[in-house]
Amino acid sequence: PESKLPDVGTSIFSVMSKMAQEHSAINLSQGFPDFEVSTDLIGLVNKYMSNGFNQYAPMPGVPALREQIASMLKSRFNYLANPETEITITSGATEALYNSITALIAPGDEVILFDPAYDSYDPTIRLSGGIPVHLTLKQPDFSIDWDEVEQKVSAQTRMIMINTPHNPTGSVLTGEDMRRLDKIASQHPDLLILSDEVYEHIIFDNFTHASILRYPALADQSIAVFSFGKTFHATGWKVGYVVAPAGIMQEIRKLHQFVTFSVNTAVQLAIAEYLKTESNYTQLPAFYQQKRDLFLDQIKGSGFTPIPCHGTYFQSLSYKEISDRPDMEMAEYLTKTHSIASIPISAFYKSRRDDKILRFCFAKSEETIEKAAKILCRI
Amino acid sequence: PESKLPDVGTSIFSVMSKMAQEHSAINLSQGFPDFEVSTDLIGLVNKYMSNGFNQYAPMPGVPALREQIASMLKSRFNYLANPETEITITSGATEALYNSITALIAPGDEVILFDPAYDSYDPTIRLSGGIPVHLTLKQPDFSIDWDEVEQKVSAQTRMIMINTPHNPTGSVLTGEDMRRLDKIASQHPDLLILSDEVYEHIIFDNFTHASILRYPALADQSIAVFSFGKTFHATGWKVGYVVAPAGIMQEIRKLHQFVTFSVNTAVQLAIAEYLKTESNYTQLPAFYQQKRDLFLDQIKGSGFTPIPCHGTYFQSLSYKEISDRPDMEMAEYLTKTHSIASIPISAFYKSRRDDKILRFCFAKSEETIEKAAKILCRI
Ligand SMILES: CSCCC(=O)C(=O)O
Ligand SMILES: CSCCC(=O)C(=O)O
Repeated sequence: PESKLPDVGTSIFSVMSKMAQEHSAINLSQGFPDFEVSTDLIGLVNKYMSNGFNQYAPMPGVPALREQIASMLKSRFNYLANPETEITITSGATEALYNSITALIAPGDEVILFDPAYDSYDPTIRLSGGIPVHLTLKQPDFSIDWDEVEQKVSAQTRMIMINTPHNPTGSVLTGEDMRRLDKIASQHPDLLILSDEVYEHIIFDNFTHASILRYPALADQSIAVFSFGKTFHATGWKVGYVVAPAGIMQEIRKLHQFVTFSVNTAVQLAIAEYLKTESNYTQLPAFYQQKRDLFLDQIKGSGFTPIPCHGTYFQSLSYKEISDRPDMEMAEYLTKTHSIASIPISAFYKSRRDDKILRFCFAKSEETIEKAAKILCRI
Repeated sequence: PESKLPDVGTSIFSVMSKMAQEHSAINLSQGFPDFEVSTDLIGLVNKYMSNGFNQYAPMPGVPALREQIASMLKSRFNYLANPETEITITSGATEALYNSITALIAPGDEVILFDPAYDSYDPTIRLSGGIPVHLTLKQPDFSIDWDEVEQKVSAQTRMIMINTPHNPTGSVLTGEDMRRLDKIASQHPDLLILSDEVYEHIIFDNFTHASILRYPALADQSIAVFSFGKTFHATGWKVGYVVAPAGIMQEIRKLHQFVTFSVNTAVQLAIAEYLKTESNYTQLPAFYQQKRDLFLDQIKGSGFTPIPCHGTYFQSLSYKEISDRPDMEMAEYLTKTHSIASIPISAFYKSRRDDKILRFCFAKSEETIEKAAKILCRI
C-alpha cells in the first residue's frame, strides 16, 4: 500500500539538529532556548506531582488553567472566552493545529496558507483531503498580499491560515492586515481563520501583537493557537492551547479526545498557578529584543544581511552577497565547516524557492550569541 | 459545514467521572488508580527537569528510553526491536493508536474490530475514511470467534485490531488465539494487526500476556501499543509507545511528527531510568490480582454476577438478576442513588447492545474497594 504522505521526509528541524550534534556545532537551527525554565515553575510541577495530581486531567484541560487563560485573554486582548466551552489544552501547539485542521477540513476544501510556512501545515491539510493553496509572502518584508488573497478566496476556500509573529521570517501582522482579513471574512461567513500565535509574547520594536482575538467579528470565525513551551522556555513540555467559538471547539475537541485525550495534569496545574504572576510573561518582549539586538549588533560588518525581524526568536539572514550556494548546501556547509547550524528557508516553501536566506534561532545565552556572531563575521 | 464526526458525543468516561464528582460517588468508572505514583519516579522527573532537560525531545523519543524499551521487549517477549527505527514514544497509547490507524488506513479500507471495543477505535478509523467492521466477542467469556473472522477477512481488510488484556471485559487472548490469527495473517500478507496491549502487566490467574511480539511471523505485520500511564499509575502523564517494523513505523512517525512532534523530555528520561529496576513492573500482576480478588470476595452474596476477568484493572458485573434497567440508566442510578459510579458496557458496542453489565475499576485502595463492595452488597 502507498504512503499517505509520500513526500514527507525527516523534518528539517530534526535533520539540522542532528547534524549540529554530529559536528559539535552551535545549534541555532531548531527553535528552542538554551537557558532554563524558571525554577519556580519547575518547583510547581514537582509540588503538584508530589501532591498526587498524576491521573487524567479532564479531556479539555484542567479547569484552573482554562480559567486562568480566560482571564489572561480578557486582559490582553479584551476577549471573552468561556473556559468551559471555548478553550482546550493540547499537547503543544502542534496538536492544536493538527486537531483544528483535521476536525474542520473535509476532502476538497481549499486552505490558503502563506509560504514560507511552518512545515506541519501542508501535510496536515492534505491528510484530511484538503487542498493547500500556497500563496507567497511579498518580499522584502514578508507581508501578505491581500489583493491576491481576495482573488483566490472562493466558495471552495474553507480556511485561511495566518501566523503572527511569523516563523520563519519574524514579520508581524498589523492592524491594517487585520482589517483586510476582516473584510474578506465578513464576505465569506463560512470561512475559518486559523491563527498560529505561538510567539505572541516575543514581539519587538513597539509592535503590539495583532491577535485575531482582538477583532471580535473576526474572532467569531477564528481559531487561535498558543504555546506555553515558547512562553516559558519549555519546548520539551509540550503544552499549548486553542481558543475558538463553542460550536467550532466542539468539533476540535472530538479530535482531541481521540488523538491524545488529555495533557499532563501536574504541568497544567503548575502553569495555571504560574500564570497568576503577570510578570512571568510580560517581561518576554524586552528579554528577547535584547537578544535580537545583540545578535544584530554583533554581525554588523559580516557578509550576512538581516531580514527585518519584529517578532519570534528567529533572525533570518541573507547570504546572497557572499555565496550563491543553494541554501540547503549553505546550511550544511556552515554546520560542518564553521560549526554553526541554521535552517534553510527553502524548506518552508512548497516550491522549495531559494532566496539564499538562513534562519538563526537567538533564544540563546549572550555568550552563545556572541560566539555565533563571531563565526558569521569570519565567513 | 457538517461535522466530520456527527455521532461522537462526550465520552462515557467524562460523563461518568463528572456524574461521580457531582454526586460525591465512589468513582469506579473511568480507569485510573486512586493510589500514588512511586515517589522515586516523581523524584526522577524532578531531577531531570531541574537538571535542564526541558527542551524538545527527539521526535521519535529520547534514545535512552527507546533503548531501555528495546531491552525490555527482548527479555519479556524475546522480540528484537531496533530502537532507532522501530520504537516511538507517544503522548499516551491514545496517540499511538490514533497515529497507527491514521497513517495506515486509507479510504475504503476495512478494519475488523471486536465489540465491546474501546471508544476511540471506531471514530479514528472513520476519520481516515476506513470502514469499521464490528464483530462481536462470544459470550460468556468474551473470546474471539476466529471462524467468523476468517469469513469476514477479504482483500478489502487492511487491519485487524486486537486488545489483550481486554478493556472493558478483562478477557485475555491465549496462544491458541494467536495461532488462529497467525494463520489468517500469513494468508493475507498485506493485512496489518494493531494490538492494543496497554494492560500487558495487569494479568492474573497465571495467564501469560500473549503479546503479538512473541510471535515473530505475526510481529512482521503488526503494530503493538503500550502505556506507561497504566504501568506506573500515572494516567495523567500521557506517555505510551508503539512498536512496529521499520517500514510501518516510518509511516506512523510521519503522523507523530505533525500530530504532537514529541513527548515530555524529563518524563521520558525519568521512565528510562526507572525501567532499569525490573521489580518496578514485575510486581504488578500480584499487586492487582490481590485487588481483584478482594473485590470479588467482598461482593460475594450480592446480586451482581462477575464476568470472568483475567486482566486489566476492570471487573465487569452482570446485574441481570436484580434489575432490567438499561445499563446506562443503571449506571446513572447507582451513581446518583448509591454513590458508586461505573461504566455501562453498551457504550463499547457500536450497536449499543445491552447485556446488563457494568464495568468497575478496581485500581483503588483496599478501603475504597471494601466500601464499594459494601454498597453493591446492599443493592
Ligand atoms: C517541533 S521542532 C521545530 C521547532 C520550531 O518551531 C522551529 O524551529 O521552527
Ligand atoms: C482516556 S479516559 C478512559 C480511561 C480508560 O482507558 C478507561 O476507563 O477505559
